[in-house]
Amino acid sequence: MAGLDNPLFDDREIDFQLYDVHRAGELTKLPAFAEHSRETFDMVLGEARKLARGALFATYRELDAQPPVFEAGRIRVHPKMRELFHKLLGLGLITAPRGPEVGGQRLPIVIDSAAQAYLCAANLGAASFVILCRGTGHLIEAYGSEALKRDFMEPLYRGEWTGTMALTEPHAGSSLADLTTSARPTGDGTYRVRGSKIFISGGDHDLTENIVHLVLARIEGAPPGTKGISLFAIPRLRRGADGKLVPNDVAVAGMVHKIGWRALPSLIMSFGEGDDCHGWLVGEPNQGLSYMFQMMNEARIAVGLAATATTSAAYHEALAYARTRTQGRPLGARGGGQVPIIEHADVRRMLLRQKAIAEGSMSLVLVTARYADLAAHATTPEERERAQTLLDLLTPITKSFPAEKGFEATALAVQVHGGYGYSSEYLPEAWLRDQKLNTIHEGTTGIQSMDLLGRKVMAKGGAALQLLSSEIQATMIEAREAGSELEELVQAMGRALERVAETTMRLGAMGMGGQAEAMMRHSVDYLEMASALVVGWQWLKQAAAAQVKAKRASGAQDLYDGKLQAARYFLRTELPRIDYLAELCTSAEDSYAAMRPEWF
Amino acid sequence: MAGLDNPLFDDREIDFQLYDVHRAGELTKLPAFAEHSRETFDMVLGEARKLARGALFATYRELDAQPPVFEAGRIRVHPKMRELFHKLLGLGLITAPRGPEVGGQRLPIVIDSAAQAYLCAANLGAASFVILCRGTGHLIEAYGSEALKRDFMEPLYRGEWTGTMALTEPHAGSSLADLTTSARPTGDGTYRVRGSKIFISGGDHDLTENIVHLVLARIEGAPPGTKGISLFAIPRLRRGADGKLVPNDVAVAGMVHKIGWRALPSLIMSFGEGDDCHGWLVGEPNQGLSYMFQMMNEARIAVGLAATATTSAAYHEALAYARTRTQGRPLGARGGGQVPIIEHADVRRMLLRQKAIAEGSMSLVLVTARYADLAAHATTPEERERAQTLLDLLTPITKSFPAEKGFEATALAVQVHGGYGYSSEYLPEAWLRDQKLNTIHEGTTGIQSMDLLGRKVMAKGGAALQLLSSEIQATMIEAREAGSELEELVQAMGRALERVAETTMRLGAMGMGGQAEAMMRHSVDYLEMASALVVGWQWLKQAAAAQVKAKRASGAQDLYDGKLQAARYFLRTELPRIDYLAELCTSAEDSYAAMRPEWF
Repeated sequence: MAGLDNPLFDDREIDFQLYDVHRAGELTKLPAFAEHSRETFDMVLGEARKLARGALFATYRELDAQPPVFEAGRIRVHPKMRELFHKLLGLGLITAPRGPEVGGQRLPIVIDSAAQAYLCAANLGAASFVILCRGTGHLIEAYGSEALKRDFMEPLYRGEWTGTMALTEPHAGSSLADLTTSARPTGDGTYRVRGSKIFISGGDHDLTENIVHLVLARIEGAPPGTKGISLFAIPRLRRGADGKLVPNDVAVAGMVHKIGWRALPSLIMSFGEGDDCHGWLVGEPNQGLSYMFQMMNEARIAVGLAATATTSAAYHEALAYARTRTQGRPLGARGGGQVPIIEHADVRRMLLRQKAIAEGSMSLVLVTARYADLAAHATTPEERERAQTLLDLLTPITKSFPAEKGFEATALAVQVHGGYGYSSEYLPEAWLRDQKLNTIHEGTTGIQSMDLLGRKVMAKGGAALQLLSSEIQATMIEAREAGSELEELVQAMGRALERVAETTMRLGAMGMGGQAEAMMRHSVDYLEMASALVVGWQWLKQAAAAQVKAKRASGAQDLYDGKLQAARYFLRTELPRIDYLAELCTSAEDSYAAMRPEWF
Repeated sequence: MAGLDNPLFDDREIDFQLYDVHRAGELTKLPAFAEHSRETFDMVLGEARKLARGALFATYRELDAQPPVFEAGRIRVHPKMRELFHKLLGLGLITAPRGPEVGGQRLPIVIDSAAQAYLCAANLGAASFVILCRGTGHLIEAYGSEALKRDFMEPLYRGEWTGTMALTEPHAGSSLADLTTSARPTGDGTYRVRGSKIFISGGDHDLTENIVHLVLARIEGAPPGTKGISLFAIPRLRRGADGKLVPNDVAVAGMVHKIGWRALPSLIMSFGEGDDCHGWLVGEPNQGLSYMFQMMNEARIAVGLAATATTSAAYHEALAYARTRTQGRPLGARGGGQVPIIEHADVRRMLLRQKAIAEGSMSLVLVTARYADLAAHATTPEERERAQTLLDLLTPITKSFPAEKGFEATALAVQVHGGYGYSSEYLPEAWLRDQKLNTIHEGTTGIQSMDLLGRKVMAKGGAALQLLSSEIQATMIEAREAGSELEELVQAMGRALERVAETTMRLGAMGMGGQAEAMMRHSVDYLEMASALVVGWQWLKQAAAAQVKAKRASGAQDLYDGKLQAARYFLRTELPRIDYLAELCTSAEDSYAAMRPEWF
């Protein structure tokens, strides 16, 4: 009953975003991407689309229904996962954005992200195994010694082994300062690691011979708190004296029965119960957290991407359903047969909201990815720094908007399906379960809001927001040039920008004036306000590009009309919320801050 | 790992709502309730609390994990369900609000609702079997002949049989005008019914000997559309010539695999495949829909109640977790041990929002229940009519606010649990699944919004809203009298009321001016606006009562402080959204109405 006709994304829409909105073609003018062209980009996208809509999506429900099992100390994944994993490896995505020196293609992240989005939309859990290889490999590439690169990065990049991020401990959760996993130097260059980690995605499985865990631990005698945390590479199997792989005292202590992303096991792992777990220090001692943040920041954007993919899959499922399911008649109609439910204004309301969130999120992910490309490969240091500042600023928004609003959108996909949506005969309920993780992992929405307001916005006297303003103003100019039809939206954007800037200045003044608690009190509201601004900007960008294309009558008029309408919807209905949120942010409203635990 | 220590509701809080806010004690002055007293009320509540916290909650997870199975044409429920059903019957709740002439206790619905809320919070699916007996029995009591009462109502009211509402058909969904189930008169007073129904809760099971389906069908030759729909009682087994029960050609055609409310089967039922399904007409021909609306309106309030119960259970689970789970330190703290997460302002934000939604919803359900009591039993016809008008007005709000905001609140309970909340080792995910149904069944939120704006608000020249205004103004006076501390909230309420009234007048003028489409365009925004007003009113009511009690220093100071704080939170943060929503409602904003299907 579930929709294998679901395209997951509309290819025309993605191409429009990549080439008309985010101008991926221009990136090929940078020396780093000189080998690339629209042709190589399209080849990558074409293969990802094919695999996503074929084997990956076809097995999604089955892998969701039969998650990995824990037996005799090991995790066994779904039998079909092995074939999927090898097909995923075949795409070469693990190293795609890395350089040729490590076997990569130096693919712009903006293209890579679009390709990855299809895979995540088709089968999130399955795609995650490959994404984990990339993140862990990249961390070792960035900070590991040549020996570590040879021993760990290379097999990860080849997909012979998989990797994990092992940060969280059962007693400490998000509070990394409190982690207690210990590492004792042995004098031979390795450490003996001991501790317990929880929520380790892909912590064990029977897909590959070996697994490399990137583990945060404290070297004996290290300072307390976050300043005493080091990063270790710990393989499940280590090389014995004869070069053969032998067990490294890494064990599965238990399984978390996740409600979504079910193809990918989430485990409680135990390191060094027999005091024989060898760990290899990555980089310098006590710098582990800053290294891990490279992977964490990539992971945060990957969460936004995964959330966007799930939202898009659910939206397209709801759209296909609304076009085929007949029921009732439009308001005011007398007689006649039943009509497809898309004819009902309330159904179009739900679909347009999903579209605005799904495609707005995608544009947000792509603009962030583009800054990542420029931060690494723009030709001047100034341009690279500028892009890095914008990338840092946008990361908490790109992590959380697709997750929070995507959950709402995915719930609307259930709602469009009515009673059928409430059953496991249809797919939206599975995406709703997948989606819920995204507001939690890699830093909850609350943590993202503190990162945004307390760190990113306030750093360097508000420099990041000034850069963002100039980006938004550039888009406003483009939109004006595209046509007077957009004037209403440009003006709404201008007002929103002004309000956010003024609110931020007032909050900054509070912070400078020693009122840090008052400044941070409505950080979640601030995040929501900033997200409305940034996604509104993305919609204005899309509207401007659509208006230009529409005037050239380039044959996809429906696509451009839809873009313009979704932009109107978002800017007219979401930007006005900025006033309300700004008011809350700067008000003395302290009801929850002042709420005492015993009053609940 | 899951919380059997969860109280589901705070008894002090419920007692405060019942006796201090909604003055259930005053109801005993009405002749209909003269046999009752606080003692009889407390006895009913005490027994419901005990059963809820004992056997019902203890089996919740098990019944969720092992839903009913469909085997050899019949549905088999969880083996423990039989014992629970008999314990539920022991409470006497099926007929509790009915009169002694049918074996009831004439219990005020306001008390009955509170008792029922505990049962639903403990085990929604299990409690639903008994609630269905009540609704179906009551429908026959209201419209059936003496013979039907004897043959069907009596066994339903005794819980010997259970009942169902069989409205929806696979091809028509919410569009009742399109239903095609047919009924052919036979001359012996019965009809032969033929058709298919879907989403029939409790449509089959092995709990009781027989099941009575209340089925909407068309008598041959009846007018098309909703004017030709009649109501039939159709038992699974009918009396044969010898008085023994024989099969009545009612079959289970399939099972819907629901994602929540899993103790209760949802079925596709087939009537009269062998042309031998006997149906008994309830009331007059072609009046079926108006009869069914009695049960439907009761069911809509029951949905609000169920949603509230789920929100409350999830809130109390999150609260208990936040008080015991230690992690991190408050912002700005240096060193020291980890603290319970309730010490983090962001966690209190999530808990206070849950509290505001859970207890605001409960107050909304109780005020609606009180109007139901007065509509039936107030001493003068004028008072009864007044209460009925308010009951009708509030019904779509009581159906949808607890469902929509309860879903958000239940998701926050997952969020408070962090990664653990994303696992089936903890309970919030199950409540999140339960909660999702409430925006869908018994009329979606979209349908409620059209009922509110198109019917309830506009009827009789806006008389209902005028009555509501006078109720809100009475509360504002009470709040003023309770103490000057509430002045800020009273003023906010006054502004909100004015804005809603003015918005409604403008919409009314659009409607009168022939712009029905423009009037209805933002009906969902109107519903949300009206809900903020009405729940804000409930919070002001609670604040006024709490302020009075707090000044008398009656020993539950924490409870009153918490109430006052939650009222501040709700009125300060939710009422300002009214301006934004009012603007949308009366604007020319038509993005989704004008969105064409081909533009998606």
